[in-house]
Amino acid sequence: MDQYNKYINKPNLITKSLYPENKETPIHFLRKWVIPEKYFYRRNHFPYPLIPQDAFYLTINGHVRNPLKFHYDDILAMPSKKLLVTLECSGNRRSKFKPKVYGEQWEDGAVSQGWWKGVPLSYLLNIVEPLPSAIEVVFEGYDFGKKPDIDGIHPFARSLPINEIFNQDVLLAYEYNDAPIPYHHGFPFRLVVPNWYAMASVKWLNRITVIDRKFMGPFQTVDYVYYPKKDSNEGFPVTKINVVSTIQKPLNYSIIEFKEHMIEGLAWSGTGKIIKVEVSLDNGLSWHDADLHQNTERYSWTMWTYKWKPNNEGEYTILSRATDSSNNTQPEEPMWNKKGYGYNGVSKIHVKLA
Amino acid sequence: MDQYNKYINKPNLITKSLYPENKETPIHFLRKWVIPEKYFYRRNHFPYPLIPQDAFYLTINGHVRNPLKFHYDDILAMPSKKLLVTLECSGNRRSKFKPKVYGEQWEDGAVSQGWWKGVPLSYLLNIVEPLPSAIEVVFEGYDFGKKPDIDGIHPFARSLPINEIFNQDVLLAYEYNDAPIPYHHGFPFRLVVPNWYAMASVKWLNRITVIDRKFMGPFQTVDYVYYPKKDSNEGFPVTKINVVSTIQKPLNYSIIEFKEHMIEGLAWSGTGKIIKVEVSLDNGLSWHDADLHQNTERYSWTMWTYKWKPNNEGEYTILSRATDSSNNTQPEEPMWNKKGYGYNGVSKIHVKLA
Repeated sequence: MDQYNKYINKPNLITKSLYPENKETPIHFLRKWVIPEKYFYRRNHFPYPLIPQDAFYLTINGHVRNPLKFHYDDILAMPSKKLLVTLECSGNRRSKFKPKVYGEQWEDGAVSQGWWKGVPLSYLLNIVEPLPSAIEVVFEGYDFGKKPDIDGIHPFARSLPINEIFNQDVLLAYEYNDAPIPYHHGFPFRLVVPNWYAMASVKWLNRITVIDRKFMGPFQTVDYVYYPKKDSNEGFPVTKINVVSTIQKPLNYSIIEFKEHMIEGLAWSGTGKIIKVEVSLDNGLSWHDADLHQNTERYSWTMWTYKWKPNNEGEYTILSRATDSSNNTQPEEPMWNKKGYGYNGVSKIHVKLA
Repeated sequence: MDQYNKYINKPNLITKSLYPENKETPIHFLRKWVIPEKYFYRRNHFPYPLIPQDAFYLTINGHVRNPLKFHYDDILAMPSKKLLVTLECSGNRRSKFKPKVYGEQWEDGAVSQGWWKGVPLSYLLNIVEPLPSAIEVVFEGYDFGKKPDIDGIHPFARSLPINEIFNQDVLLAYEYNDAPIPYHHGFPFRLVVPNWYAMASVKWLNRITVIDRKFMGPFQTVDYVYYPKKDSNEGFPVTKINVVSTIQKPLNYSIIEFKEHMIEGLAWSGTGKIIKVEVSLDNGLSWHDADLHQNTERYSWTMWTYKWKPNNEGEYTILSRATDSSNNTQPEEPMWNKKGYGYNGVSKIHVKLA
């Protein structure tokens, strides 16, 4: 070991569960545009799949004129796109819902960002030619297993409306940060759907099927559905990422020196570009614009900072609230829902100046 | 990478802060008598210290007849003891206090256990011969820095009453799990005080001083003091570990199958041997004895299990409560205190059987 290395403290992924492996990023300690694999949160529904040799072939069939089987090398030879994409688990911040909800108790760190390279799915669909009756495309991963609430064995599978695929960037990705997709994140092929919560970005793609009806798999119709009423199964699907901000610095409930502090955070949205982040130090009575630090990538998060000059020692609450270009703003209270998706209430931490 | 290794999921230490480095163990996933260094929680007050060559010499002076300087090799040649010791941070579970308190927001994992080998401190004191006026021994580490609440630079230093050293095992330790103490845990010399919260087990020992008064350092008189009233500085010192239990399985707020489950946990105490762990599934109306799994080591934690045969699907609260041989039992509510030490309220998790 390099003798100086031991003085440099590095973060670890935070273990939430091991089987399946669910680990979040201690997002407070990562302030970058590109997150390396090591700090990319892991979210699984099932044990990691064995990847057969066959996984290097990808079939697209169903309601198409030309069902085709593509080899990995065919895909790599096609026109590609490389996008910097924020991927966020729709259960991120589930632990903050009041009343509490069951499920993986994510804090703030089930979110990550990096460069995904792949073939636009619209390009592939144009080759296989969906029939006029086609309305959805189903993406099935190699991962499968039992769910506690439903009998039988299920693969992880999700659908997207065919229009959505032609209306926005959707990649059949094969690289992350200029290397083949890491095994734990979907090697060899992963769908990447910018703007949508990451359940849409199916890992370890096994097959793609074009269908002429609505897909009814359990990850489409049971999970990843907002149920806003405790005693009703009325719901609507989880789709795009709600506008949200996170406070990276200072840390919640920390005791810090009475002096000027730079408050730092991130903000992102699946419904537009971040145009404003505001900070409040008086429980929401007054709000102050934070400085935004942005790049030119369309699906990237925004970094923000706010220089805070406190007048007095004592206890403070720090709030942050982001607004996007579709005029969506973080609400004071998020929409509670039974399964705990899409939490985006105003971000709040407490600090004590000593 | 071994091709099968990637299917085995391992936990990581959970990063709470990086400077100083504070990381807790995801204790739910560790059910062992001996925790390897990799999963030993890290708790620091200051940056990691540079260890000078001089650290291999340890001076014991002050109110003694024979002040002496021992070399590492001298210490290793002395009669030694090897003890399996539970070390717990007194701030463990601070995040559970209601009302909330400031400070590192530890969950359940600022606790660990392993084999510490060293020379009984009483043996060394008998060599240097404390004067009759001596009442305390001060242990100063190489780590130092600024505290947000006090001016100046302070080393981490703690004292023990001299009687305590003669009344119970206190080790000048130099090995952990049969290897030199890891750098991050106090190499080359660390004090190990079984039964006491781990602030007493001073790392990177620099000097030992016998004194004839009460030590007034900030980690003795400002921190590691129970202040039970919010608006008063009346307090009393944090010393021995309060009897406590932790539930390792199932996970809090998890959704699990409707079937028989083995509830698993740990229990320990600084005031006696664990003689009982009880589990309640009806919010404390009735309690059932868990099975205890113990070894012959005096300072070891106890493992416990309880076979739960639920009658119905639905939401359940699981409580656990430990009792030790001094008849101390976990209270329903812990003693709230301003700095959040010694939390030992009845352990509680929520699960949903689907």
